[in-house]
Amino acid sequence: MRHEVLPPGTPATEFDADTTVEGGDGSWRAVVSDRWDVGVNPNGGYVLALMLRAMGGTVELPDPLTVTAHYLRPPDHGEASIAVDVIRSGRRFATASASLRQGERERVRALATFGDLVAAEGPTRVDAPPPELPPPEECYDMLAGRSPETLAAAPTLLQRFDVRVPQPLGWPLGERRGVPRLDGWIRFRDGRPPDLLSLALFADAFPPPILDVIPASWVPTLELTVHLRARPEPGWLRAVFRTRVLRDGLLEEDGELWDGNGDLVAMSRQLATVIPAG
Amino acid sequence: MRHEVLPPGTPATEFDADTTVEGGDGSWRAVVSDRWDVGVNPNGGYVLALMLRAMGGTVELPDPLTVTAHYLRPPDHGEASIAVDVIRSGRRFATASASLRQGERERVRALATFGDLVAAEGPTRVDAPPPELPPPEECYDMLAGRSPETLAAAPTLLQRFDVRVPQPLGWPLGERRGVPRLDGWIRFRDGRPPDLLSLALFADAFPPPILDVIPASWVPTLELTVHLRARPEPGWLRAVFRTRVLRDGLLEEDGELWDGNGDLVAMSRQLATVIPAG
Repeated sequence: MRHEVLPPGTPATEFDADTTVEGGDGSWRAVVSDRWDVGVNPNGGYVLALMLRAMGGTVELPDPLTVTAHYLRPPDHGEASIAVDVIRSGRRFATASASLRQGERERVRALATFGDLVAAEGPTRVDAPPPELPPPEECYDMLAGRSPETLAAAPTLLQRFDVRVPQPLGWPLGERRGVPRLDGWIRFRDGRPPDLLSLALFADAFPPPILDVIPASWVPTLELTVHLRARPEPGWLRAVFRTRVLRDGLLEEDGELWDGNGDLVAMSRQLATVIPAG
Repeated sequence: MRHEVLPPGTPATEFDADTTVEGGDGSWRAVVSDRWDVGVNPNGGYVLALMLRAMGGTVELPDPLTVTAHYLRPPDHGEASIAVDVIRSGRRFATASASLRQGERERVRALATFGDLVAAEGPTRVDAPPPELPPPEECYDMLAGRSPETLAAAPTLLQRFDVRVPQPLGWPLGERRGVPRLDGWIRFRDGRPPDLLSLALFADAFPPPILDVIPASWVPTLELTVHLRARPEPGWLRAVFRTRVLRDGLLEEDGELWDGNGDLVAMSRQLATVIPAG
C-alpha cells in the first residue's frame, strides 16, 4: 500500500485543512471550503468551527465553553476575514467576539466564552445517559438506500462523516414518519478524532429532524449556541437531535452529543426557519 | 382606598420603571436597579431585559426572537450606558449587538436577532405540553415557610414575583431532595402582564434547581440564551427549570415557560458556575 505524501505543513485531515486560519492579533484570514455544504451553502456548524479556531488562536485559555453564532447572510466559498475582539480576559474565563466578513459584508457574528476544562474544579453530578442505540456495525449508513439521483443531491457535508442510524431515514425516499427526532452515531469519515472544536460542527451535522415531519427545501439557521462540556474521547459520538416547537415557520433544534465514555460532551440549540419545498 | 398619584410619565409597574432606557441612535442610558438582586448582584435576566429594551429601541423589527448574553463582570447598581450596534437590518430579521458599560468597564455583551412574530408565516407543529401542576391557589408561595431570618436573606428579585410551587422548597430549610428540577407558576407581583421583553427576565427568575442537590453561595451565569417563541397571554406563566450536567463546577440550566393558553412562549439555557457555600 502506497501512502500519499502530503506537502509539509498540510493538515492531515479534511477538517483541519478546511478550518486553517492564518494571521494573529485578532486579524485572521480563512478560506471557506465547499466540502461542508448543505445545498449550495456552507454548513453553519462548519463556519462556526472556523470562527472558533480564529477565536482560540486569539484568547489565552484553551477550551471554548459556550459559543453562539448569529447567521446574517450565507457565506460564499472562498476567502474570508475573521476579526476577533477579546472582550474580557480573566484567569478562569475569557470572552471574545468574532466577525466573519467576505467583501464588504459581514456574514456571521459569534460570541464565545473560553476556559480550561482540565483545570476546572468543583462539584460533579451528571444525569444525562446517552441514548440506547444498537452498535454502529448493526446500524444503517445514513446515505444507504438512496438512489444515485438522491445520493448525488446529498449535501457534501454528509460525505465528510460516517453517520449510522438505527433505521434507514424515510424522508429522503418521501416517507415521512412524523417524528422530529433523529438518533445516531457519527464520526469523521477520514478518522480524525473529535475534539471540542469539531463538536461545534458535529452539533450541526445531522439533517434537521423536522424533515421527518414536513418537506422543506432548506432549514437555514438563524442562531446556533453550543455548550462544550468535556473534551471527547477518540471514537464514535452518539447524537440525538430533536425539535419540539415549529411555529409559523420558526423552530428550535436541540442536539446532544456523547462520547465513547458515555459522557455528554456537547449540548446545542439552534433557532432556524423552514423554507418550504418546491 | 386611596390611589397613589404617580408623576406623569412614570411607568406604572416595577419592571417598566426599572427597564427604562433613554437616548437613541444606538446610544442609551439606563439605571440598574437594586430591586432585582440575587445576593448583592443584579439578576442576569433583569440586566438582559434592560439591554433588550435598548436593542428594541434601536432595531426596526418589534420582537426579539433569540438573544444571548455573556456576563463579563457583575453590574453595579446605578447608571450604565448601553451601546447598540445594528449588525444587519433586513425585512424579516435584524441582528444587533449590545454592550452594557459602567465606568471604564464592559459588564455584559449581548447579541440578538429580532423579527415579527405576528407577521411570521409558515408551518406549525407543536409537541411541548406544559407541565401538569395544581392550580396556583392550591400551590405554595415560594417564600412561604421561611423564618424571618431566611426571608430577609431572600433575593430582592423574588420579592418582585408571585411564585407558586407544588410543594414547599426544601433547600432553604436545609433539606435537599437531590432533584435538580423546579416547576411552578410565576407572575409579576404588581400585576404587570408578561410580554416578550419580560420573558427574558422570567427565564432567569427562579432559584437555580441545582440548589436542591448541593449547597452553593451563588450560581453566577456565564452565558444566557433565550428563545422567544410567542407573545404570551396575560396571566400566570408555567415554568420548568432543570439541570442535567454539573461537571467540575460548571452546569447548564434549561428553562421553559408556557402561557395561559398552554403555549410554549420561551425556552432558555444558561451556562453557569457554582460557587460553593460557606
